[in-house]
Order: sequence, then C-alpha cells, then structure tokens
Amino acid sequence: MAYQFERGRIYRMPTHFGPAPGPRQVPVEAAVDSTHSPRKTLFTASCLTEASARPRHTPERFELAGEPVVTIEFHCMAEIDWLAGRGYGMIQLWWPATFNGEHDRVTGRFLAVMWENLADPIITGRGEVGRPKLFAEIPDSRLANGTYHCVASWMGFQFLELRVSETSMPGDPPLRQPELDGTLMLKYIPRTGEWGEAEICQVTFTPMATPDLIVEWRKPAMGAVAFRQAAWTDLPTMYHVVNALAELPVLAPRGASVAHTRGGKSYRDTRILK
Amino acid sequence: MAYQFERGRIYRMPTHFGPAPGPRQVPVEAAVDSTHSPRKTLFTASCLTEASARPRHTPERFELAGEPVVTIEFHCMAEIDWLAGRGYGMIQLWWPATFNGEHDRVTGRFLAVMWENLADPIITGRGEVGRPKLFAEIPDSRLANGTYHCVASWMGFQFLELRVSETSMPGDPPLRQPELDGTLMLKYIPRTGEWGEAEICQVTFTPMATPDLIVEWRKPAMGAVAFRQAAWTDLPTMYHVVNALAELPVLAPRGASVAHTRGGKSYRDTRILK
Amino acid sequence: MAYQFERGRIYRMPTHFGPAPGPRQVPVEAAVDSTHSPRKTLFTASCLTEASARPRHTPERFELAGEPVVTIEFHCMAEIDWLAGRGYGMIQLWWPATFNGEHDRVTGRFLAVMWENLADPIITGRGEVGRPKLFAEIPDSRLANGTYHCVASWMGFQFLELRVSETSMPGDPPLRQPELDGTLMLKYIPRTGEWGEAEICQVTFTPMATPDLIVEWRKPAMGAVAFRQAAWTDLPTMYHVVNALAELPVLAPRGASVAHTRGGKSYRDTRILK
Amino acid sequence: MAYQFERGRIYRMPTHFGPAPGPRQVPVEAAVDSTHSPRKTLFTASCLTEASARPRHTPERFELAGEPVVTIEFHCMAEIDWLAGRGYGMIQLWWPATFNGEHDRVTGRFLAVMWENLADPIITGRGEVGRPKLFAEIPDSRLANGTYHCVASWMGFQFLELRVSETSMPGDPPLRQPELDGTLMLKYIPRTGEWGEAEICQVTFTPMATPDLIVEWRKPAMGAVAFRQAAWTDLPTMYHVVNALAELPVLAPRGASVAHTRGGKSYRDTRILK
Repeated sequence: MAYQFERGRIYRMPTHFGPAPGPRQVPVEAAVDSTHSPRKTLFTASCLTEASARPRHTPERFELAGEPVVTIEFHCMAEIDWLAGRGYGMIQLWWPATFNGEHDRVTGRFLAVMWENLADPIITGRGEVGRPKLFAEIPDSRLANGTYHCVASWMGFQFLELRVSETSMPGDPPLRQPELDGTLMLKYIPRTGEWGEAEICQVTFTPMATPDLIVEWRKPAMGAVAFRQAAWTDLPTMYHVVNALAELPVLAPRGASVAHTRGGKSYRDTRILK
Repeated sequence: MAYQFERGRIYRMPTHFGPAPGPRQVPVEAAVDSTHSPRKTLFTASCLTEASARPRHTPERFELAGEPVVTIEFHCMAEIDWLAGRGYGMIQLWWPATFNGEHDRVTGRFLAVMWENLADPIITGRGEVGRPKLFAEIPDSRLANGTYHCVASWMGFQFLELRVSETSMPGDPPLRQPELDGTLMLKYIPRTGEWGEAEICQVTFTPMATPDLIVEWRKPAMGAVAFRQAAWTDLPTMYHVVNALAELPVLAPRGASVAHTRGGKSYRDTRILK
Repeated sequence: MAYQFERGRIYRMPTHFGPAPGPRQVPVEAAVDSTHSPRKTLFTASCLTEASARPRHTPERFELAGEPVVTIEFHCMAEIDWLAGRGYGMIQLWWPATFNGEHDRVTGRFLAVMWENLADPIITGRGEVGRPKLFAEIPDSRLANGTYHCVASWMGFQFLELRVSETSMPGDPPLRQPELDGTLMLKYIPRTGEWGEAEICQVTFTPMATPDLIVEWRKPAMGAVAFRQAAWTDLPTMYHVVNALAELPVLAPRGASVAHTRGGKSYRDTRILK
Repeated sequence: MAYQFERGRIYRMPTHFGPAPGPRQVPVEAAVDSTHSPRKTLFTASCLTEASARPRHTPERFELAGEPVVTIEFHCMAEIDWLAGRGYGMIQLWWPATFNGEHDRVTGRFLAVMWENLADPIITGRGEVGRPKLFAEIPDSRLANGTYHCVASWMGFQFLELRVSETSMPGDPPLRQPELDGTLMLKYIPRTGEWGEAEICQVTFTPMATPDLIVEWRKPAMGAVAFRQAAWTDLPTMYHVVNALAELPVLAPRGASVAHTRGGKSYRDTRILK
C-alpha cells in the first residue's frame, strides 16, 4: 500500500513523508500575519550600464525596458512567520524587461540572480516559484562612518560588496524606469539523463501588489556596488555568474536607499506566463 | 538579441549567464579524477523495522523488497574534484524496493531522504538527478571511547544521532537483502501557481556500478540510530520528515560498518525510468 | 635589538607586533562615538532562587545583597565602533552582592558568568577587565506568537533558553534590590607550571555610570529561563558551570523586559578593588 | 559562606562553579590516551627572511638563533581527548630564538603568534600556558591538482594562505637551525585600570619531549606562504599582527612537509623561566 498524494497540497522532495510545510503552506499553529512578517532592513542601489551589456543575459522572448539600469538589493530579514520567527539574508539583482509571450505581455523586474544564506528558502523558492536562488554567506551589514557595508561570500571568497551611505542631498540622477507589473523569472529544471535538455523552461511571474507591505521609512542614499572576478577554484559552481556581473560596465550610479519595512506576502500569487 | 541555450550543455537557474559548472559538468582545469575523488569516511548502520511501517512512505508503483530494513549512512567527504578539492558532509537514508514501471522493473536502494551541509550539491542534486536532499548542519564525527558519534541538526536543533563502534565480533545478524541494481529516486517539482499539482513526477535511477570506487578498508561495527521528535517551531520546513522517521519502530540492529573509500562517479549515468 | 613596550599603550598576547587595538584602544580612524555605539536589543529576566543557593558560587569577601535574585540578560548588539561597525551577541548572568575589601566596600552586580559568540571580545574582556566570558553560539532571537526566544548552544548542544513575552500587565512582583554601584568581577589567571596556584586573583569593578547610554524604549515583559543539564561529553569545558546553574531552584519570576538602547562605554573606568 | 578554592586544582574565569575541566584537567571519564589524541594532519612551510626583519618582533632578553627562518604550521586535528573526541584547526608561526634569563638559558621555537578556530582552547591556552592565540576561521584544507591549500580568515577577510605540494624531489635547500629545546612564549596579561601596565609578563617554556607522539608518515613538499595586508576595518583587533607578517620579506623557501601524526601531550610540563 503505497502513499497517495493529497489533492491541493504542495509537495517537495522528499515527497514520501507528506505535504511539505513552507512559505506557501504553513501549519495552523504558524499564526501567519502578513502585515508583520517579515521585518526587513532593505539596502538598494541602482547603476546605469551599457545598453549592449544586458541583452546577452536576457532570455528569448524578453526585451529590455527603459534605461539600461541594474538594481541590487540586500534584504536583512527577521521575524519571518513560516520560519517560526527566525530571519535570514537575501540578495536580489534585477533589471526591467518586457516578456512578449504568445498570450501574455508583461513588463517587470527581470530577476537575474538571487543569493540567500539559508538553504531552506533556496529549495522552496527554486522549486515552487522559479526564483534563481544561489547560496552565499551574507553577514549582517556593518555600519562605519555613516556607510553601510553589505557583503556576500562563498567558502571565504568575498565576491560582492554593496556600500550605501545615507544622504540628505542625493546627487545621483533619479532612476527612470517603466511602470513595473511585477517580477519575471525563468523557471528552469534540466532533464535527468538527457543532459542538456530542459524538463521545465517556463516564465513565471509574481504581480507587484503587496497590500500588507508597510514601508516604515525610506531614506535616499548614495550607493556603490562591486563584484570581484573569481576563478573556478574560488567559486566552482557560480564563477560564471559572478564574472558576468563583474564585467558589466558601470557607467553611473542611479540612486540608492535604505529602508525599514514590515509585512509581505507568500508569493502564492505567482503564475506561469504563456 | 537574447541568449540561446547551447546544445548539450547543462543549465541550472539562473540560466542567464551560461552553462552551469557542477558535478556533471566541470571545466577542463578541474582535472577530474574519479579514482581519487572523493576521499570518504563512511559510517553505516541498518536496523530492522516493522513490515507495516515503510509502505506509507513508499510511492506508487514501488513495492518493498527483502526484509523491512532501513539503512542510514553518514558520508564525510574530502578532496572532491568538482568543488576544487573541498569537502562536505552527506547523509543518506534508504530501504530496498522494487519499481514496477510500464517498461522498467528495477530493484534498488530507494532513497527516502538525504541531508547535506552545503547548499551547492543540494541545488545540483535535486534539479539534475532528483535526489531528495535537504540541508542540515553535519559536524565532523566525534570519536570517544571507541565510539563514533555522528549528528545532524538544523539551526541548533539536533534531530539525528548515529553511534557506530568498531567491533571484532559483531553480534548483529547480518543484513539480508535482495540484489540491488542501483539507487531509485522520485524526482518531483511542484507546478507554480496551480498549487498541489506536479510539474515533474518521475522515477530516476542511478545504476550501482562505480568502477573507480576503491574501498580502502571496511570494518564491522555495532550501530545505533535515533531521530528526535520535533515541533514545527524546531524544524519548520521538515518536522514532518523527521517525525515520520522518529516514529519508525526499531526492532533490532542489522549490522553497521566504518569504511574508508576513494573514488566515485558523477551520476551522469542516471536516467528516467518509465 | 629587541622591541620595547611603548609606555601607556595596552598590549595583549601576542605583544610582539605592537600595542593591540581593541575596545579600550581604537585607532584614530575608528571614529568612536559612545553615544551611538553599540545599538542594542536587550532581553532581561530575573527570578527568585533559594537564599541558600548562591553562596556556594560567591567568592570570599563577598556577601549577598538584597533578595536572592538571579538576572540573566541577552544583548543583541550591532554597529559597535571598535569592531568597525559589526555586531555580536552577549549573555550576562549576575546577582547583587557586596564586596568587603580591606579598603573598598562596594555593592553591585556580581557578574557570575558571561557568554559571547565572538572570540575577540572574549580575549579582550577576560584579559583587560576580568570579565568571566565563555564562548557560545548565540543566534538572533526568534519571535513567534508574541514571545522572543533567545538560546545559547555549544557545538550543537543547546544549554540555555530565555523566553520573554511583552505584556501590558506584568504579573510578576517587581524586583527589589539594593542600590547598585556598578559591576563586580573576580579576575583570575592561573599560574603556569604550578598548577592549582593563582597568578592573578583580583576583584575588579566597573562603576555603573554610563552617561552616553540612551534607552530608546523599555517594555515590561514576562520571562522564563531554563538551563539544560549537560554531560562532560556535551560541554567538555563548561558542563560544571551550566550544571551549577541548572541546579539553582527557581522559586518565582521577578520581572522581565525588552529594551532598545544606543550608546555605551569602553569600560576603561574599571579598576582593581582592594 | 563563600566558596574556597580547592588546593591543587586548576581554575579559570569564572571560578565560581568549581575547578575547570580542560586540556590539563580532564574528568576521569575522559579516558585520556596521549598515544592516540590528537590525530593530526600537519602542513609545514619555512622560509628565509632578512636577518634584520625579525628582531623588532622579538622581546627583550631573547636573541635570534640560527638562520633567519620563519616557520608556519597548519594543524588539522581530530579525536582530541579533552574535547570528548572533537577536533579543531590550529596555526602556529615561530622562529628559533634563545632566551637569556637570569637563571635560564634556553634555545627553542619562539612562538610569535597562533590562530585557532575554536574559542575554548584559546581561553585555556592563553591563561594557563601563555600561548599567543587569536581566533580565525580555518576551513579544512583543500586539495586540487596535487596542492594543498590552507587558509585563514576573520569575518570573511582571508588574511593567510599556505600552499603545500608533495614532491619526490624537493628543490628547497634544507632548513638549518640550532637544536631546539622546546617552545618559548611570552605570557602577558595587562593590568586592569592602570592601562599600559603589565600584570603578568613572563617567559614560559614547554620542553620538546613528546614521548607519545607518533609520526605516521611525513613527506617532503614545496611550500609557499602569503599574508594579505589588512585595514583596521578588515581586522579591527589584529590588523597590526597580520600587517607586520605581511611585511616580512620572503627571500627563499626553506622546506615544507605534509605529515600525519598521532598522540601528543597536555603541556602540563610548561614552566615559567626566570
């Protein structure tokens, strides 16, 4: 007598022990409250790059939208409901793009890569949502002489630094970008055995609306981002990602900020675009 | 001009920066040598459980094979080629089962769950092979008074302990099990948006043959395994897995061992069964 | 030509590379600002124990003061100036006592034991001030269902949990204690070679005054503390400490709080009592 | 009724809970066996520096002995008896020197600095023996293309790398050094309150004899060492140490090795020189 999958319940590997608790499926006792979870400090910086640089990292059926601007965000999160009140760190790197599907046409934040310092949301996010999450060590930000330092490393190799300084008179020209409908991702799972083939290759989309998100404060800032070139021995599973980003020319800063927020959502509103 | 996927190359999320280096796709400089990589200390213990206990954790089209025996293995690995000589820790839990597919009938180690203490092989193994890998902290084994202590924890909650003692006169009755053709897995990826549906639900299989594996020595031992019951707050993404295993009745030990090995393979020989 | 110690500069082992930067000796570039460093979330809980319980852990020339109350504090610290803006976690356990020296008579917080999750302040605090600091893993507090959970562990063995819940109507009787002049410590260094002898055995004292400390808010709460009995194999360098504290009878809670503070001091005002 | 110190027993801060278990005082159950503890992989490399470089890092009453050679060792240790079978990593940096005391004249390994990745032996070693131990992250060595890579970092800043390659024909000229009687250290504890004064400033000495040490094998190798210059913000408690070592000119390699050993001693034979 083998087990049966319960209808309407989310499973993840291993499926053999029942439906899987996670961000989009919490037990009753979790007392989910999307107006309080998570509590977040958010460091953001954008920079202008060459118009010709991003296309080679943008998949088919996408076209770039607006200025050639890349944005990087460090999310320091606490009091996350589905982790029973624990926190972790997350990095997102995106640029604006438009997806031209057969049925859907959507402009949004094209999520190029993410890093997180906890395996659990990496597993749930890759499989359930298609978020391109990799692992990195992401220590708490460090504040010295008015500048926040956010870094990411892997096994001791620091590959990313973001510096953000609050300022009352931001000198950066403001970020001009099209209206964004949400977040665009390419969910991709390779086919086992037929190496090089795709088992899943879908565009997934999370709408922008997050009604329970409260921005407690947001301050303008000046920001600077640097990726460090890596050898294969430094980052044997992702040197190609880091080196591609290190090679993007930075033409000019395009604004930065520090913010405190509360609340969020489970991304259950994510869907596949066609 | 968007990027094109290169034919015959393995990709993983994010796919936007080119083919992904990993266990089954290493750069030339990796100097892969499957007769040396990895170097491994392997602690194994098996125990007899009730015949009625495992079926509820075995998927459709599988039937149990041989005695109702569960085996747990701790692999302490070093000098791994695709990680540029680094190491990490891995746990496997399996029982013998036979897959009765439409075309394939295979008896093997049914891989029920794995834990690893590094996110990178979790990402590659889940997506490329269908290995049911979760994250745990797995410190080096501790040897005191002739007994090796292997443990696993998550955010400070220790949920698994294996004790293995070398012995010249093992008192455990030997493990009787059918001939095993390889390792059986259920590769499962949920469908985004249609929550509860499966996008991928396949049986994958890695043949047993590992011609470059050298067992430098293997010693018989006595073993004992214990899982600890967890609340959702202790293990919010996997308490259901750990509790199911903690509830398996342990009727009798069925042999244990400590071994040193060298060499392995990339699991490129894994294929989908039908 | 050997090196000479520079007059008036603080040294620590190894002394061979010059005066040692640290909390009480920062380079000019450190931009020390004791009105901002550190930023702290502070969880405190006190409990009444038996009058007869603490004396066996109080050294000669000390007598207990006030009610037999033990207080435990978790300090989650960020933006620490002498760490260039980094943070770390600290635990303090103390009870009120009076030191009756030949010249000095002082009543204060008798600091029985501390734990920190960073080796650097352990080294500086033990050697320079005489603070009885040990190492523990201290993750960020976890907030679930209105209760903060603060824990400490060592190599995966969790030995201490503090739970603190904000409350608008604290039911605990308030803590009654004598006026406290500061913090009392026993600085002790063993003599090398003559095992069992003391090289240093001094009472050190830090006055209470911290003019730059700003309590941004403090809320009353209900608290509960639990130490877990440990075997030598669990905590081979400090099971005796943890077990002594686990054996203290808890008769009643005596108040708890959660607070946010800013500012502090370097403890340069610490001196030896006679 | 205060507690009394028990005669002949070693204490450490906090002294209030009884004698302190540790390397030189283990409970009966520890089953100490100095012929088996620890099991060690030892990477060693020496290099010739300028004769004028080391004196400024050598204290009074010491003179350099033999060639101006600096040796660095990485000790990867497992199965340590006083840690109940756990392991940790240690780095030692030393050069030969002669202590000319009033009564003692000893030539030995002058221990300039050590790093360890566990706070407990740092606390015991600094206080009980006078070993100049600091904390660093020290991952397991990495072996790629025949070369072992050993590194040390602090909060993500990698400050030291040792590369050691086994070779059947070592080209380095052999290390010539005087006969060494043991290990020389400067035990130093600052005086609380009178900042800049020393409370303890003693030369301590551990004789070389380690009768239970078994070198299972030792292979000649070629080695290379590099320290990385650090800013105060990178290493706020030890940039002065690392920078002094980074500035030592490396004139030529002077031999390296890889070894496996078993057994050791407690350093209870350490004594104060006069």
